[in-house]
Amino acid sequence: MDRKPKILVTNDDGIHSKGILVLARALREVGHVFVVAPDREESAIAHSLTLHRPLRVEKIKKNYYAVDGTPADCVHLGVNVLLPDRPGLIVAGINKGGNLGDDVTYSGTVSAAFEGTLLGIPSFAISLVSRSHFKFDAATRFAVRMAKHVIKHGLPKDTLLNVNVPNLDEEEIKSYKITRQGRWVHNGSGVIEKTDPRGKKYYWIGSGQFIFDQKKDTDFEAVSKACISVTPLHLDLTNYGSINLLRRWKI
Amino acid sequence: MDRKPKILVTNDDGIHSKGILVLARALREVGHVFVVAPDREESAIAHSLTLHRPLRVEKIKKNYYAVDGTPADCVHLGVNVLLPDRPGLIVAGINKGGNLGDDVTYSGTVSAAFEGTLLGIPSFAISLVSRSHFKFDAATRFAVRMAKHVIKHGLPKDTLLNVNVPNLDEEEIKSYKITRQGRWVHNGSGVIEKTDPRGKKYYWIGSGQFIFDQKKDTDFEAVSKACISVTPLHLDLTNYGSINLLRRWKI
Repeated sequence: MDRKPKILVTNDDGIHSKGILVLARALREVGHVFVVAPDREESAIAHSLTLHRPLRVEKIKKNYYAVDGTPADCVHLGVNVLLPDRPGLIVAGINKGGNLGDDVTYSGTVSAAFEGTLLGIPSFAISLVSRSHFKFDAATRFAVRMAKHVIKHGLPKDTLLNVNVPNLDEEEIKSYKITRQGRWVHNGSGVIEKTDPRGKKYYWIGSGQFIFDQKKDTDFEAVSKACISVTPLHLDLTNYGSINLLRRWKI
Repeated sequence: MDRKPKILVTNDDGIHSKGILVLARALREVGHVFVVAPDREESAIAHSLTLHRPLRVEKIKKNYYAVDGTPADCVHLGVNVLLPDRPGLIVAGINKGGNLGDDVTYSGTVSAAFEGTLLGIPSFAISLVSRSHFKFDAATRFAVRMAKHVIKHGLPKDTLLNVNVPNLDEEEIKSYKITRQGRWVHNGSGVIEKTDPRGKKYYWIGSGQFIFDQKKDTDFEAVSKACISVTPLHLDLTNYGSINLLRRWKI
């Protein structure tokens, strides 16, 4: 009997991105891999499910499906429709670019792992911290180790892992660290105003400078010290620390 | 001298939604209101900033701007470009439909308040828990009370408030409660498969049944007991409870 678990692999760089191809190939060592990923790059569309229009699925080859939707859509359709039965693990990545600090709330890669967690399936996201010249080897190898571990031991309830790997050769990476989510410090307005040929203004977001708050035990700190960062995230956004304060309010 | 604070009002139902119009009108009692909202409904696009294309802004009338982007875009452009100076408060809503439990991670309304919080401005989201026959009076009145309170006292650091109002007449609402985020329990696959006239399949997400886990002190519980729910949320998704467990792992 075949006891290999099914693994759903997705990303937000799109199904043709090198990051998902090397990841899917490497995870074959661990289980039966199914790739369900957006048909194009879906960065910064965050944790969205597409509710206002139907979704189309294109089978690219055996066990590879392209969806005209978001990473969360891919997980939802993969688990509920495309895979022959429930996967034992969902892996999102390898993202070209880090998902550190507050960026996790925008990240399509992390949102895919959130969607998997909402569906009750152990899930992790893995990202390579760089803007170019991506070195996938160390991240790929760590994804395989992590996949084996998670399949064997599971994950704490309602918890996903957000893994960020420095863009270094494997021998330059020191270790991995369990971290907490850091914070970006915004610096500057982050919007550029331009004028089109017809004299109308338009705006680009994302031009501001961001620096990170390199506090102890954060994802930022780990990566800056040549370590792989593993942050456990959950879906409960309640700021419990402020509940008692607010209960004293008289609104 | 004019000491009235500036208030940025946005939503994700679009600038022509009744919820934002009644909210903006009512908040004039508290400050100078600027409306910067999507030019169309943007539900379930979550906390996304539009980075892959430029944004256009249309001035509809004095202090009313429609943006061809997301609620988070509206906050970003409003704060950094459109308002004459930094607002003292950001209010997102009144959303037609609740933002309870895990839905906050998908909610455009809540994401607008998150974006405001990231920019360091006190922010709250307000939603009306119903699918139709919206009664805006109680929510509008509570928004004004909350706005006054937040402008006077501020909010805990990095914290936004997620307000959900039962769809009742004002005299039927008992009180407000400070709550924690509840959880949906998914029930069924949530995907409907259809076939188009050319024989190709397509899929609709969102058809599954969801029931909520009505635990003590949750947003769900408050609303089900005819109370307004006020949940403090923050941007730190770290599951601190699992860090020590994970540190014992050998991946």
